[in-house]
Amino acid sequence: MAEGPSLVLQPPSPELARKIANTLRFLSADQVQKANSGHPGLPMGSAEIVTALMTRHLRIDPKDDKWINRDRFVLSAGHASALLYSMLHLQGFLTIDDLKGFRQIGSRTPGHPEVGETPGVEASTGPLGAGFSMAVGMATSERMMAELFNTPKFDVIDHCTYVLTGDGCQMEGTVYEAASLAGHLGLGKMIVIYDSNSITIEGGTSLAFTENVAERYHAMEWHVQQIDGHDLDAIDRAIENAKAEKARPSIIIAKTTIGKGAPNKAGKNVAHGEPLGKDELAAAKAAMGCPAEDFYVPKDVADYFDVRRGEWMAMRQEWNEMFSAFDKKHHATARELLRVASGELPKQWKNAVEEFPAGKAVATRAAGGIVMNQLGAVIPELVGGAADLAPSTKTDIKTGANPEFIARGAFLGRNIHFGVREHAMGWFTNGMALHGGFIPYSSTFMVFHDFMRPAVRLSSMMKLRNIFVYTHDSIMVGEDGPTHEPIEQLASLRAVPGLQTWRPADANETIFAWQAMIERKNGSSAICLSRQNLPVLDRTRYAPARETLKGMYIVDSAVDAEKAAEILIIASGSDLHLGLAVAAKLREQGRSVRVVSAPCLEAFRAQAEGYRKKVLPKRLKKRLVIESGVIQGWEGILGDSGVFIGLEDFGLSGPADAVAEKLGMTLPAAMEKIGQAGW
Amino acid sequence: MAEGPSLVLQPPSPELARKIANTLRFLSADQVQKANSGHPGLPMGSAEIVTALMTRHLRIDPKDDKWINRDRFVLSAGHASALLYSMLHLQGFLTIDDLKGFRQIGSRTPGHPEVGETPGVEASTGPLGAGFSMAVGMATSERMMAELFNTPKFDVIDHCTYVLTGDGCQMEGTVYEAASLAGHLGLGKMIVIYDSNSITIEGGTSLAFTENVAERYHAMEWHVQQIDGHDLDAIDRAIENAKAEKARPSIIIAKTTIGKGAPNKAGKNVAHGEPLGKDELAAAKAAMGCPAEDFYVPKDVADYFDVRRGEWMAMRQEWNEMFSAFDKKHHATARELLRVASGELPKQWKNAVEEFPAGKAVATRAAGGIVMNQLGAVIPELVGGAADLAPSTKTDIKTGANPEFIARGAFLGRNIHFGVREHAMGWFTNGMALHGGFIPYSSTFMVFHDFMRPAVRLSSMMKLRNIFVYTHDSIMVGEDGPTHEPIEQLASLRAVPGLQTWRPADANETIFAWQAMIERKNGSSAICLSRQNLPVLDRTRYAPARETLKGMYIVDSAVDAEKAAEILIIASGSDLHLGLAVAAKLREQGRSVRVVSAPCLEAFRAQAEGYRKKVLPKRLKKRLVIESGVIQGWEGILGDSGVFIGLEDFGLSGPADAVAEKLGMTLPAAMEKIGQAGW
Repeated sequence: MAEGPSLVLQPPSPELARKIANTLRFLSADQVQKANSGHPGLPMGSAEIVTALMTRHLRIDPKDDKWINRDRFVLSAGHASALLYSMLHLQGFLTIDDLKGFRQIGSRTPGHPEVGETPGVEASTGPLGAGFSMAVGMATSERMMAELFNTPKFDVIDHCTYVLTGDGCQMEGTVYEAASLAGHLGLGKMIVIYDSNSITIEGGTSLAFTENVAERYHAMEWHVQQIDGHDLDAIDRAIENAKAEKARPSIIIAKTTIGKGAPNKAGKNVAHGEPLGKDELAAAKAAMGCPAEDFYVPKDVADYFDVRRGEWMAMRQEWNEMFSAFDKKHHATARELLRVASGELPKQWKNAVEEFPAGKAVATRAAGGIVMNQLGAVIPELVGGAADLAPSTKTDIKTGANPEFIARGAFLGRNIHFGVREHAMGWFTNGMALHGGFIPYSSTFMVFHDFMRPAVRLSSMMKLRNIFVYTHDSIMVGEDGPTHEPIEQLASLRAVPGLQTWRPADANETIFAWQAMIERKNGSSAICLSRQNLPVLDRTRYAPARETLKGMYIVDSAVDAEKAAEILIIASGSDLHLGLAVAAKLREQGRSVRVVSAPCLEAFRAQAEGYRKKVLPKRLKKRLVIESGVIQGWEGILGDSGVFIGLEDFGLSGPADAVAEKLGMTLPAAMEKIGQAGW
Repeated sequence: MAEGPSLVLQPPSPELARKIANTLRFLSADQVQKANSGHPGLPMGSAEIVTALMTRHLRIDPKDDKWINRDRFVLSAGHASALLYSMLHLQGFLTIDDLKGFRQIGSRTPGHPEVGETPGVEASTGPLGAGFSMAVGMATSERMMAELFNTPKFDVIDHCTYVLTGDGCQMEGTVYEAASLAGHLGLGKMIVIYDSNSITIEGGTSLAFTENVAERYHAMEWHVQQIDGHDLDAIDRAIENAKAEKARPSIIIAKTTIGKGAPNKAGKNVAHGEPLGKDELAAAKAAMGCPAEDFYVPKDVADYFDVRRGEWMAMRQEWNEMFSAFDKKHHATARELLRVASGELPKQWKNAVEEFPAGKAVATRAAGGIVMNQLGAVIPELVGGAADLAPSTKTDIKTGANPEFIARGAFLGRNIHFGVREHAMGWFTNGMALHGGFIPYSSTFMVFHDFMRPAVRLSSMMKLRNIFVYTHDSIMVGEDGPTHEPIEQLASLRAVPGLQTWRPADANETIFAWQAMIERKNGSSAICLSRQNLPVLDRTRYAPARETLKGMYIVDSAVDAEKAAEILIIASGSDLHLGLAVAAKLREQGRSVRVVSAPCLEAFRAQAEGYRKKVLPKRLKKRLVIESGVIQGWEGILGDSGVFIGLEDFGLSGPADAVAEKLGMTLPAAMEKIGQAGW
């Protein structure tokens, strides 16, 4: 073990610390008051917690919020954004004018914390439980990077992940899932401070939440402390204890008073989510011995943080020097660390993938597993796992330097057993992408996308490179029946703004879908893969698989000249093969047909208009779309005269082919529909 | 307290009990083997649990699986469906031929249990955690009905809710949420048996799930026991203890061996989800001393259950006699019980609702609250609550006989504090609808629909009368910003097969949407309501609000004759008001416009073709659709020449009107788009 950093933070005097807490308290309340919108309660109640954390523990670079070894601080109670912005002001990231722009369009201080909008914000939070759950992914990333890169003399990756959470988060199922996993993994450097003010929107927590949280966390293998959340020394000691506990994550249950300081509203749910009102705010300032002035930062507080920023920068400097020495001694390792932290891909990573030979039948989930393993061999930062379905989703990476599963105390590896925790898995991978150093993926059956949808939404909103692998992507699941058969999931995935949803039609389309997902540095992707075997198309007969990248392409251009086509068949994924069969049948009947493969509607929409018109010419009105799902999302392509072969209701339990037949996803059923259309 | 039922079940001899267990074990394994698909592991491991439960505790009517006072048995580990079907065979609900049809199309024995497909199946399960979470709603319903209807002499509602759950369920966040709520409510008659076989699909639970489950449940205010799950007497005693514990729900952690009896696969994850194989199955039967014959039921087992069914019917008869006496003494109450249990609505319930006067501005969430309260006064079975957002969603019912919130030991009430547990809330209300006696609703912000989507999906699949209230239904949420602003949620709700999604445009449309949801006995509904105030349309100028029921209707027929219209404007919810403003502006310019209100696309699709063509005549190609959401779902109505005014990306944080302006949801922006279209 290398020696830790030598510099320590100089804590403020008790009196100054109280002043800092009140500065945070009222900077926050002032923001809410000026915006006439927001949540003053938790900021006022957590001011001492944040003071102790920020003045005595948090290690950051006030000039560089992207420093890979900074402590992470995640505000899981995202509605307390005003408090985070007050912190970031004292840290030097935000100006008082920024605070005055709280919750206004174009400001750096939106209603809830948003990554990318505000320097120093580690995660977009607001949906309760999100931040806590993402922090588990961050803390795991820290351990995994440390194992990969640290040497006996150089702890280049060595930081804590702090979380501020409230009662609301603690009731969320995803927090339970994430906490159970964090305890299982023994994430000793994850330190959660739980602002337990016992107040929720509907009233006291006694109305709905009476479990023994401390005992529950103990059961989940956490180190648990209970303190007075307004006692600065108690908070400090608890954080010290938490840092000293290496084997388990820590939760500090800090009893606080919501809206602390507000003479009439403190301790009540009315303090939670609306401005205090001018009079109450003034009275609160008076009661706490603070000046009435708005957005007031006492000079000694400002001076203290001037010094503080210097100390923080010295810490960063110390790390920089260590990193230089590390670079000198372990140059390749240091360069590799910088590469993965930057998100740059290794050179010539695409060469690792071999195309599949035509003719063989391969399920795209199996192809996906092979592709991932080829990519994984050359992209060591590609890491992830499944929600207890890896044998089915085929997502274990068995190639490359560290093909192990990570486990408590053994973080050199790239596979993660998430357990049956889809929701936390989604957040976890968001946290990994936010932390940096990894390209995460997660996998489950496609129908269980529903369980992790909030995480997918925020992944896309945060523009994270995060890959969601969904297998068993249609009614061809068969015997497991309607609860396991996705029907509306393609539509609901495509509805998420910014998300790219891939559904490759064969093994070779799978290759290019994976390439696109890996290359998409500023956006999230989902890939939907078949349970059943699918023929690998003969690319000497059909268009090159590389065309996949365009989202939609004419697949059988070699068979039928573009110009002559009369009927346009468009299909995604496994349904392309039915489309090709329909085309063959129609051609037997002397009809002229073009078949378009549609692996990714979003990628297609991003193509130039000329290309889009070539693939979907306006004049071609006889359009047959085939997809094993609801029509939603296809009407625009179908147009006024199109025919859709898909599903309107939930699936059925039976052997897959029998289900397809019963539900009309067969050649005869398709031909009948075409006949009915009078084409 | 009335005396309990006098009849008790005669347990089988120890030897016969073992035979019954093996009968269940191998009937299950035979089903999986014959189907060549399914899960033998848990059925074989839980055979003793089910034997003890079924022979000594479960109170049902083998001739009437709808008996309101039957014990509920929910197989939360739905993949063990073969075991449930074996049980139902011995109970008399299924034939051996049914078991032989396991996982085949058209059989009564689908891959996972499906309500409505199989007599005696209480809930569709398979997605892990679902059954457990629904059972909490069932157990609460039992207590609420008991409080409403029982008298000191007559416990007409008095049953247990049993759950069989596995390791997978226990990792799911929704189970935590539901268990925390069950502990909080002190559901003493909920008895969970946890088949703890320590095996998951990826391997041992040690890979991902090492928490102390017993301690966690104790922390959540449960009565906890740990037993050997193959010891029939231990199981029996534990269930007795659980029944004796009145104040807390019970969990019995039963250590079992997955695939018990299979000589090579028992205790391993290979036993979980695939047929044992002929040889292994034969060896298992031999090892357990059972004949090799497939689908074998020993004569003494069959004879025992013949007697058993008689005992069960005698129990039902005893209840019937009690109910007759109850009916005689408390006729109105008895009739009311039968009414709510049947799902019939009270007479003239619609008269309770008063139309809102035109002119005033009312948020539809506020209107919704008023309507619910008017309905609630005459429909006492309308019960529900919010995920800690009732002050915002306006869903407390303060009218009628019992306007209280339920709480531990105080179940006379109709409002439920769900806590910040959206997912469990959704399942809970499914459980209430499955139990019978109530019309449940739940509410949260619309964007948090994502958190409860699996429950909504299954609600619709099970065709439950369950009402999902989603307020803050657009970017007009404003300051809370993109994490709180629904964009794709309307599309994703409409994508769910069978679900009806309502988005009323004003207070009076809200009335009829609520009527439609209440009347929809065999289907689920969602209602999306505005945060912001909306004008109440003057129905002397506009079409009657009752037209809402048709899903889409010409709202300004009085202003513009149908025949003359040149431009068709279609809008839902709050966006209708922008549509009307656009129409007014276009008319100023001398254009002929028709405006269609679109509160429910699904209800519209159910109308006769003639009506649909009248509202959306083919000749009217200049169609402007306005909705604060993604285009998905509207392209079919827009057609090839339509213009959509909506959103493509996530929202923004700022005052609502400023957000709308920035994102182009305003009159000038709409007029500009119409100009660009060259109309």
